[in-house]
Amino acid sequence: MIITRELKLTSSGELDVINITEKIDDIVRESNVRNGACFIFTRSSTSAVTVMEFEPGLVEDVKAMLNRIIPKDYHYEHEKKWHDGNGHSHVRSSFLKPDIYIPIVNGSLALGTWQQIVFIELDIRPRERSIIVQIMA
Amino acid sequence: MIITRELKLTSSGELDVINITEKIDDIVRESNVRNGACFIFTRSSTSAVTVMEFEPGLVEDVKAMLNRIIPKDYHYEHEKKWHDGNGHSHVRSSFLKPDIYIPIVNGSLALGTWQQIVFIELDIRPRERSIIVQIMA
Amino acid sequence: MIITRELKLTSSGELDVINITEKIDDIVRESNVRNGACFIFTRSSTSAVTVMEFEPGLVEDVKAMLNRIIPKDYHYEHEKKWHDGNGHSHVRSSFLKPDIYIPIVNGSLALGTWQQIVFIELDIRPRERSIIVQIMA
Repeated sequence: MIITRELKLTSSGELDVINITEKIDDIVRESNVRNGACFIFTRSSTSAVTVMEFEPGLVEDVKAMLNRIIPKDYHYEHEKKWHDGNGHSHVRSSFLKPDIYIPIVNGSLALGTWQQIVFIELDIRPRERSIIVQIMA
Repeated sequence: MIITRELKLTSSGELDVINITEKIDDIVRESNVRNGACFIFTRSSTSAVTVMEFEPGLVEDVKAMLNRIIPKDYHYEHEKKWHDGNGHSHVRSSFLKPDIYIPIVNGSLALGTWQQIVFIELDIRPRERSIIVQIMA
Repeated sequence: MIITRELKLTSSGELDVINITEKIDDIVRESNVRNGACFIFTRSSTSAVTVMEFEPGLVEDVKAMLNRIIPKDYHYEHEKKWHDGNGHSHVRSSFLKPDIYIPIVNGSLALGTWQQIVFIELDIRPRERSIIVQIMA
């Protein structure tokens, strides 16, 4: 059995980190699946999904580390084609990847105590986003 | 068909890299699945699972590179909330991610010759860990 | 239902980035699956799969950033065992990971407009590669 849902998000701009755990949890509960797998995929090349403790300090730490590891202020060849100033957004997305898997056990997402599922906007402006959520059982 | 198992691990401390291939392989064999998919998820925000050649030199190289890319000795806002000195552990986990997928072909994990599945402890002290393994066919 | 296919690739050498979207798309179409999930896994510890806009400038940007974050010209303990000069290839692979998930919606890969699936050769010479593609529905 496979259930497919689309989650629509509007990000507020670059490095907006959005906690989507409750929305995914709602889809899991509506599915009535007891044991299964949940897969999440962001349909864009300038965003990512991952798991983290959603706490304001850590959100700042993740942003700071992204800026340190894959700086915005750097030479990007992508700029030559599009001149849209988001070469770093694309590279960050290809490294962080658009997908995540979370097990469903006893009818709930089997997250650890401090794990929340987050969407990270990597583009340089607010965007409308489409995230596909699939539940398999 | 979906089989869900929990793997319990005790890590020895920060950057303990544990080869879990045999334990996953046991679960695959007990399932009698010939063609299917294996999904692994660590239920914590300060650890990760990945695939690598499990060789002492490379284990050191992965540790050194984690220390280089996301240093321990850095300012983390997370510290302000918890004062537990593991801000870097959380950021490393959110970048490496808690999940991995391995195909099952002809009754075995379809790993390459040099691929082993590893759990990486990213927290700063020994921890009891829960890893969910799911097999779908 | 699960369909398993092997994709054989020959890379041209280090940091060859190969767009495998069409080949994966062919497998999806032949499966006749309308709603399902596609999982891709490279069976090697010195390569990776991810999603990116496959555009020459960005391909160069991804290569440059890999060289910057996990440099080739660095001390790797792996060298002591094998003397094959690819310690950085292994570390890059364990960080980027060998797997990716793409949803299938209405009979097609539910990729965003600018998302292509790529294989990245991380080893230091041309290699024959085996990639497992599984479709579940």
